[in-house]
Amino acid sequence: MARFAAIGLDHRHIYDLTQGLLDAGQVCAGYWPETTDPRVLEGFRKRFPAIPAAGKDALLNDPSIDFVVIAAVPRDRAALAIAAMRHGKDVLTDKPGVTTFAQLAEVEHTVGATGRIYSIALGHLLSPSMQVALAMVRAGAIGRLVQVTALSPHRLNRALRPSWFFERDAYGGILTDIGTHQIDQFLAFAEAEDATIVHSTIAAFGTEPPGFEDFGEIVLSTATVSGYARVDWFTADGLASWGDGRLFLLGTGGTIELRKNLDIAGRSGADHLFLVDGRETRHIDCTGHPVTYYANFAADVANRTETTMPQQRVFTVCRLALQAQQQAERFTARPPA
Amino acid sequence: MARFAAIGLDHRHIYDLTQGLLDAGQVCAGYWPETTDPRVLEGFRKRFPAIPAAGKDALLNDPSIDFVVIAAVPRDRAALAIAAMRHGKDVLTDKPGVTTFAQLAEVEHTVGATGRIYSIALGHLLSPSMQVALAMVRAGAIGRLVQVTALSPHRLNRALRPSWFFERDAYGGILTDIGTHQIDQFLAFAEAEDATIVHSTIAAFGTEPPGFEDFGEIVLSTATVSGYARVDWFTADGLASWGDGRLFLLGTGGTIELRKNLDIAGRSGADHLFLVDGRETRHIDCTGHPVTYYANFAADVANRTETTMPQQRVFTVCRLALQAQQQAERFTARPPA
Repeated sequence: MARFAAIGLDHRHIYDLTQGLLDAGQVCAGYWPETTDPRVLEGFRKRFPAIPAAGKDALLNDPSIDFVVIAAVPRDRAALAIAAMRHGKDVLTDKPGVTTFAQLAEVEHTVGATGRIYSIALGHLLSPSMQVALAMVRAGAIGRLVQVTALSPHRLNRALRPSWFFERDAYGGILTDIGTHQIDQFLAFAEAEDATIVHSTIAAFGTEPPGFEDFGEIVLSTATVSGYARVDWFTADGLASWGDGRLFLLGTGGTIELRKNLDIAGRSGADHLFLVDGRETRHIDCTGHPVTYYANFAADVANRTETTMPQQRVFTVCRLALQAQQQAERFTARPPA
Repeated sequence: MARFAAIGLDHRHIYDLTQGLLDAGQVCAGYWPETTDPRVLEGFRKRFPAIPAAGKDALLNDPSIDFVVIAAVPRDRAALAIAAMRHGKDVLTDKPGVTTFAQLAEVEHTVGATGRIYSIALGHLLSPSMQVALAMVRAGAIGRLVQVTALSPHRLNRALRPSWFFERDAYGGILTDIGTHQIDQFLAFAEAEDATIVHSTIAAFGTEPPGFEDFGEIVLSTATVSGYARVDWFTADGLASWGDGRLFLLGTGGTIELRKNLDIAGRSGADHLFLVDGRETRHIDCTGHPVTYYANFAADVANRTETTMPQQRVFTVCRLALQAQQQAERFTARPPA
């Protein structure tokens, strides 16, 4: 059992991080009630009335606290993580962990200098259907994996978003932000330590404010596997989820499709897996598959291990996301005639 | 009612072309029984026992014949089409219509010189669900269309394939061949006369013979719409169709997904459309939607019109497919360790 503090309360993801850790038997020693979005703070207090508020310095200086969780404005996450590590704490942050190459270099340097663990709550670690699919691919269920296609639409939820959500420097760009998950899952399925960003595009199709990056795509590859990922902010209100996330795994001997959040106009629930192999086509409900990331992270903190993900891979994911963002071709749609 | 001849019997698609035209009330005056694959010829005779065989020259010189249909080896289609046009016949060919830029130039020149119609039986013209989706997108069902993603897997069916199927020069390359449909449908949905090939990849993931192009992808765009298409030859035997073709249409106000050939582990039949808009999520069965391409083509032949597709668009589709093929980055997967 480890003790942690919540020190970045700008994004609602802080609820998931905190709840996940509590469910895994960890103890939240306190939270720092500073935010750019009072609604997030209020929601935190409602969900976790027993967790005490405290100053940031008090939390960082409390030797009984093992690690911090961070869902600050993306631009500010690296500085908080570095401060925490310099105070001897490990870090679990929401994605994106960093928004610039300079921040990434500083975080890497600090991890090296302090020996602290820096982890990001990455999508594939938290998804039951992805965990099942990973196990199946590794067991050879679809032969040799050759390509991964990911569609990752998100709901904009304008009314819920603070102003920083629409500021490019604050969120880091659409590929730095939600592209992080796509790169992470590609590396996981490809069982690769690195990848090449072959092509990327960022588009502003007209979502206000002007220039807001509402679409992005990445073509990437390892020595043996090719990948494509598409992210966007266009989920319509008629969908019963924030996004109809899909993953298509193409193998020499079969395919897997994941409908991660829902099966539109179909079966109830989330985490649907569809396997086609040489013999048959099957639907597999992955709902019951346990997600052990939070427990594993706490064990890593206790044992100084890297079971959730090698530390270097976390940095590689960040670097590739920044690179996809930086080298992207810009697509600015002409206004409709 | 028009009269036609079948003069290229190397690919089984000749059955679909012929049957589609017969169903549309046209008359097949004869077929040229020359082939590189006797199984295709035998199948043609079984399906159409009443159609008489005849020499190519006899068919081309028969003034009662209005047009020819061609499903020869792709490399040979342009020469047959040109010969037919020079004999005053219009042309309806299987895709790809051409395998090189030189062939395309010759076909274009011949159309200009003879005033004949040169049409390719392109996927979106023949798919009930695509026709329904096109009408919905044009009616604004998903707001403004911003992106189109197409997944188009195909079954290799090795035992059924003649040797030319595996010869790069004969089939023209995977993007020249099955990429043609992807480019065509992108232009149709984008309501564009042209597009830019932003990026393309061709991979040889190890399907025999060495170097066989078993995967390809294209990133393309118009001034207002972006697109991605993936094609491959990896459909596994456990799928109840030759390919789980999908189309994802992303709009500012909703999305449409097509499951063109089947709904894996789900509903029976083909041509499933899923609409998500601001209000709801709906499944629409498009099976009953009439496909009028063959009748429209026959009417174009009779009336000298371009209702199925502007003649220039046919050439543009060919040019873009050749360009995607030519400029593609090559991905040769290292053999597994």
